[in-house]
Amino acid sequence: MSFWALKLEYDGTPFVGWQRQDNGISVQQVLEEAASRLFGGIVPEVVVAGRTDAGVHASAQFARMKLPESHAERYSAYQMLAGLNFHMKPHPVVVVRAAPAPLGWNPRFSALRRSYRYLILNRPARPVLAADRVWHVKKPLDAEAMHRAAQSLTGRHDFTSFRAAACQAKSPLRTLDLLSVRREGELLAIEAEARSFLHHQVRNMVGTLKLVGDGSWPESRVAAALAARDRAAAGPTAPPEGLTLAGIHYDPDPFETFAG
Amino acid sequence: MSFWALKLEYDGTPFVGWQRQDNGISVQQVLEEAASRLFGGIVPEVVVAGRTDAGVHASAQFARMKLPESHAERYSAYQMLAGLNFHMKPHPVVVVRAAPAPLGWNPRFSALRRSYRYLILNRPARPVLAADRVWHVKKPLDAEAMHRAAQSLTGRHDFTSFRAAACQAKSPLRTLDLLSVRREGELLAIEAEARSFLHHQVRNMVGTLKLVGDGSWPESRVAAALAARDRAAAGPTAPPEGLTLAGIHYDPDPFETFAG
Repeated sequence: MSFWALKLEYDGTPFVGWQRQDNGISVQQVLEEAASRLFGGIVPEVVVAGRTDAGVHASAQFARMKLPESHAERYSAYQMLAGLNFHMKPHPVVVVRAAPAPLGWNPRFSALRRSYRYLILNRPARPVLAADRVWHVKKPLDAEAMHRAAQSLTGRHDFTSFRAAACQAKSPLRTLDLLSVRREGELLAIEAEARSFLHHQVRNMVGTLKLVGDGSWPESRVAAALAARDRAAAGPTAPPEGLTLAGIHYDPDPFETFAG
Repeated sequence: MSFWALKLEYDGTPFVGWQRQDNGISVQQVLEEAASRLFGGIVPEVVVAGRTDAGVHASAQFARMKLPESHAERYSAYQMLAGLNFHMKPHPVVVVRAAPAPLGWNPRFSALRRSYRYLILNRPARPVLAADRVWHVKKPLDAEAMHRAAQSLTGRHDFTSFRAAACQAKSPLRTLDLLSVRREGELLAIEAEARSFLHHQVRNMVGTLKLVGDGSWPESRVAAALAARDRAAAGPTAPPEGLTLAGIHYDPDPFETFAG
């Protein structure tokens, strides 16, 4: 067998998420069906770095595709990219890089750091140019207060308060390397980085920080919510459309090892 | 009569452009019909800063709306914004600021400087997250060469070579204050600033610089195309979806004069 590394971009709006489900079309299904058409009926086994939820976007998702040797070697990196992209049309999913995977590379377990970006459009008027890419919050938000409160979440903690009930991770301990909130005009850009995140962790942190931003919570309540180790102590889950999986760091980089 | 200043954002994709036309729906029509519903059948006279073409976006278009005194005074700035936005749904147009217009303010003639942004997505894979917001160019572009060539267009010149046949301006003389090309990863961001532009001027300059970027033209040919004062000497018109009217500078600012 032979392994290919893929870097993918997708608009999560029409999908039930990364993973195949009965109630709609998934990104995984679009990729696997395109591969099956390209490879004459062979459906490759696909491993992904992070299973994004319904409505969540990716500008840099990573996946590994397992193919019979005979098929994998027939394609240049460009042919693999162009072939998969041709068959994924008109779905809003593309392969932006493709290369034979480095030996032993696993997109999920080799990931050293994941970066998510969450965007809030903070103005009275509904989003137009950024529709489906932002959470629309009309009430003015204090981005500096949100940023200060966010700092109590960085470091190694038990994130039970920010974890979805359905989360399958064995441990609620995670090390949050970065959580920053920055205003750029009407937009609030929230960046979160960690080796890995719990299910809904970013959206639950954003939903909680928003309560600080609109004045519902004092800044200090975020640290208290974390310490409570109780989902009910934190704020609601922010909506999926503001969230984008924006990058994953690997060493070695699968596309620098083999020039794609 | 009473005058209101409006700052508008719109996604140009579904429109025939700003101006009313027989072959489809225009931004002007959406605004006027919303105003008519809000004001009980009265259609206000609307003057706009710049009539954008079909498919061209605006993050900061400015317009002036003329209303009978009795109607204009019934609304706070927020009510005007919210009322127009309610009636413009589900069209991708919103009022992002509204305020009583400063005395003598005309969005077209009072404009001191207009800013346009043109985005090129330069990679093999089609756009997904930026679909309908970028020109997709697969062939690698040399942004630095494009930027250098662009500098021969700044200043006061006869822009006949970059002017649409249908352009109604009396003079082809314009002063281009800024034309910059900058790469941000897979994106090329082109910024153009001038007091006013000729019809298709930005898209014709971009279409010409792209020929430098992909190696079809030497940098020096851009200055020669300008000097020729002949539309046939310059490159093709870049597609509308990459272009956004991104700002207009007024002094005084209509929304700072009257806090909206």
